[in-house]
Amino acid sequence: MTTRLDTHPPRGMRDLLPDEVEVRDRATATILDVYRRHGFQRIETPAVESIKLLTRSEGGENEKLIFKILKRGERLARAQNVDDMVDLGLRFDLTVPLARYYAHNHAKLPHPLKAIQIGSVWRAERQQAGRFRQFTQCDIDILGVASEVAEIELIVATAEALLALGLDGLTVRVNDRRILAAIAHHCGFEAARFDSVFIALDKLDKIEKAGVMDELEAEGHSAKAIGGLLTLLDEVTGAAGRLDQLAPLLGEHWDPGVGRALERILGEVEHDGRGRFAIRFDPTLVRGMGYYTGPIFEVQYREARSSIAGGGRYDRMIGKLLGRDVPATGFSIGFERVIGILMEQATPGARDRDRVALVIDEQAAALASVLRLARELREQGSIVSLEIRSKKGGRQLQELELRGFGRIGVVGEDGAVEWRARRSEPVSGTGT
Amino acid sequence: MTTRLDTHPPRGMRDLLPDEVEVRDRATATILDVYRRHGFQRIETPAVESIKLLTRSEGGENEKLIFKILKRGERLARAQNVDDMVDLGLRFDLTVPLARYYAHNHAKLPHPLKAIQIGSVWRAERQQAGRFRQFTQCDIDILGVASEVAEIELIVATAEALLALGLDGLTVRVNDRRILAAIAHHCGFEAARFDSVFIALDKLDKIEKAGVMDELEAEGHSAKAIGGLLTLLDEVTGAAGRLDQLAPLLGEHWDPGVGRALERILGEVEHDGRGRFAIRFDPTLVRGMGYYTGPIFEVQYREARSSIAGGGRYDRMIGKLLGRDVPATGFSIGFERVIGILMEQATPGARDRDRVALVIDEQAAALASVLRLARELREQGSIVSLEIRSKKGGRQLQELELRGFGRIGVVGEDGAVEWRARRSEPVSGTGT
Repeated sequence: MTTRLDTHPPRGMRDLLPDEVEVRDRATATILDVYRRHGFQRIETPAVESIKLLTRSEGGENEKLIFKILKRGERLARAQNVDDMVDLGLRFDLTVPLARYYAHNHAKLPHPLKAIQIGSVWRAERQQAGRFRQFTQCDIDILGVASEVAEIELIVATAEALLALGLDGLTVRVNDRRILAAIAHHCGFEAARFDSVFIALDKLDKIEKAGVMDELEAEGHSAKAIGGLLTLLDEVTGAAGRLDQLAPLLGEHWDPGVGRALERILGEVEHDGRGRFAIRFDPTLVRGMGYYTGPIFEVQYREARSSIAGGGRYDRMIGKLLGRDVPATGFSIGFERVIGILMEQATPGARDRDRVALVIDEQAAALASVLRLARELREQGSIVSLEIRSKKGGRQLQELELRGFGRIGVVGEDGAVEWRARRSEPVSGTGT
Repeated sequence: MTTRLDTHPPRGMRDLLPDEVEVRDRATATILDVYRRHGFQRIETPAVESIKLLTRSEGGENEKLIFKILKRGERLARAQNVDDMVDLGLRFDLTVPLARYYAHNHAKLPHPLKAIQIGSVWRAERQQAGRFRQFTQCDIDILGVASEVAEIELIVATAEALLALGLDGLTVRVNDRRILAAIAHHCGFEAARFDSVFIALDKLDKIEKAGVMDELEAEGHSAKAIGGLLTLLDEVTGAAGRLDQLAPLLGEHWDPGVGRALERILGEVEHDGRGRFAIRFDPTLVRGMGYYTGPIFEVQYREARSSIAGGGRYDRMIGKLLGRDVPATGFSIGFERVIGILMEQATPGARDRDRVALVIDEQAAALASVLRLARELREQGSIVSLEIRSKKGGRQLQELELRGFGRIGVVGEDGAVEWRARRSEPVSGTGT
C-alpha cells in the first residue's frame, strides 16, 4: 500500500461542482450568443506560451506571477542555471497570446479581426479572498480598426452581453490615455514619469484624494504638479465629468480630435443603450496596463467599487511582434466576478428543462423497455437519468427530488412505471 | 527596439482559426446536449495537479510526458535538486483528476455521480502527424454503480452523441479485462506478467498475429503459452467473436458471471441501437491503461483502424485516494480525431445563421440609425457585423461574401442602405 495522497486541488485553484458549472456554462452560452450576433468569432490559442514572449510583454506585475514550465529531456540536462531550465509558461492573460496569434496568422484571418476569446489564465498570486490562481477570462477584441467605431461596437456588445445575463445597474466609465497624459502635462509632471502618476491616480477609488497625494509625494513628484492635479481634480469633480468643461481647463494640452472621438463614443453608446445602462466620461479612470494608447473603459455593477469589465485601445502592441503597427482595441468581462454575482442570485433547484429520474432494479429484466421510454422522453427534450434502486428506498426518492428531478418514475418487475410526481403532473400512456 | 520574437505557437501546439473553432464549438454543444439529456452533469477540475498525484497514478507511459511546473519564490530557492524544484504538473488525462475530485468532494456530490468532463490535457510527446501536445478530451464517467447498467448507459449515450454529430458506420467493440486474464491464464502465461501479454496483444490491429508472436517471444514468454494463444486466436477468429463459443474453449477459467454481464451489455445496447450502429464482442480488444478492471470498449469509425472513443471499468482507482473502493466506469470520445473527421466533411461557407455585413464610412454621420438596424436584425436572430468601408471597394464586398456574409448592406451618407444580395433576397423597409 502507498500512503494516501492529499486530495485538495492545488493551492489557490478550485474544483467546480456540477451546480456551479451549470451557471458558468449558461453564462458562457449567453455571452457567446450576444458576441456572435455582433459578428465576433471565437478563436483559441494554447494555454502555454514561450517564456520569452511572456516575459517580454507589457504585462506589468503579471509577469512576476508566471507559472514556469521545466524543459524536458536533454535540453533540461544541458541547462546552466534556473532561468535556462525553463522554456514555457502558462499564459497570464489573453491579450499577449492574441497579439502573437495575430502576428503569426494574420494572412489567414479576416480583416478586420473581431475575435472572442474565453479561456483559463494562471497567475501565481498570493492567496486572498475571491482571487484564484486559475481563472477564466472572456475577451472581445477588434484588430485592424483605427476609428472609434471599434470602441462603440465593443462597448455596445459588452453592455448587451451583461444585460442578457440579467445584470442591471450598469455604468460604463470612459476615459482616454491621451487625456490622462494631457492632465499630467498640464499639471507639470515629468513626461518620463507619467506612468507613476497614473498608478497613483488609479487608486483614487480606494485611497481617496488624500491618499493619492501622499503616494505622489512619496514618489518624489514636484509639490507644484501635485497641487495642480489637486485643483484640477476638484474642478473636474465639480464639472461632474463633463468632457466639454475639461477642454478650457487643459488649454493648449487639450487635443480636440481626442475630445471629438470620446464625445462620439459617449453619444452613440448612450443613444443605442436607450436608458438600460449609464455611460459617462470619467477623467480619473486609469486602467492598470502599460500598453493602452487611447480610449479606455470599465463597467461598474451597481455600487460595487471594483469593475466587472474593462478594456481599451492598444495600438502599438502587435507592432512589436509583427513589425508594423495594427490598431487594436479590446474589452474583457471579469468572468469570475460575474459568476460570483450570478451564483448569489441563482435560485437553487431552478432548472431550464424537465428532469426525469427512472429508478430501476440493477437486474431489471425490463431494461429494454426502460431504455425505450428514456429515449422517447429525451427526444421530447427532457433530461432523463436512469437511477439504480438503492436499499435506502424512500430516502433515495427524497434525494432525487433534492437533486432537481421534477418527475420520478419507479420501474416495477414487469416494466410498469409508477410515477411519483411532485413538481409536475405524471406522464401517462408511455410507461409500459 | 527589441529583437522581434518568434510568433509560432509552442512546439506541438496549435492556434485555432475561427472556422475550426466554429466546428469544435458546434460539436461540443451537440455532445454536451446528448450527455445532459442522459442525466450527466459537467464538472471541472484545475488544469494543474500536484506532481505527486500525477506521478503516482497508473497513467502508464503518460506519466513520462508530464509538463512540470517550477516552484516559486523561497520554496524554489530551497530546492536541493531538479525533482525538488517542481511541485505541479499539467494534467495528462481527465481520469486521474476525476479520481482526486471525487475523493475530495464526494460528500457534496450526487450519488451516483454521472460526470461530463471536457477540457484540455497536455503531453510532451515527440511530434508526429495528428498528435498534439495540447488536445481536448471529452469524457463521461459513472462513479458509484457496480452493475453493468452503467456500461449500458455509457455506451448508449456515447453512441447517440457520435450519431448526433452525423458520424455513421460506427462499430462498438466490447471485451472484459477478466476475459483477457482468463485467456492468458488458460494459455499458461505467468500471472505476474499478464500486462506484457496484453501490451503485445493490443498491437494485433497494427502488427498482425505474426508480429504479436514475435513480440511475445522477445519478451521471453514460454513457447507453449504463445502457441496456445495462437491456437486460441484462430479459434476465436473462427467464432467471429461470439461470446458463447469462448466459454467451452476456456473451460475452468471462464467466469459465467462475467459472460452474463457482457451478454447483457451487448444485447441491451444492440436492441436500443435499432441498427444505427453495430456492437460486437472482440476478445482481442485490450485498451492501454493499467487501471481497467472489467468491461472495456472502443468505437470504430468506418474502416479506420484506430478508435474514435474508448473506455472501461476501473473499480480500484478511487480507492487508492479515498481509502475505500468506489465502482467506476468511463467512456472518452477522441475529440481531436472526431473534429478531424468533421473538418473533412465540413462544407466551407455553410452557416447555420443569417450573416449580415453593414458597410459604413468611418465618419458616418448616420451611425445611430445603423446601430438601430443592426440591433433589430440581431433581435430577429441574425449575425450582424459592422464593417468599415475600405478603399478597396469591390474587393471588400467580394471578401465579405467569401467570409460567409449572405447579405451585405452598404450604408450611404444619408443612412440609406443599399443591399447587395447574393445568396438571399434583399431586406426591404428596415434600411432607413
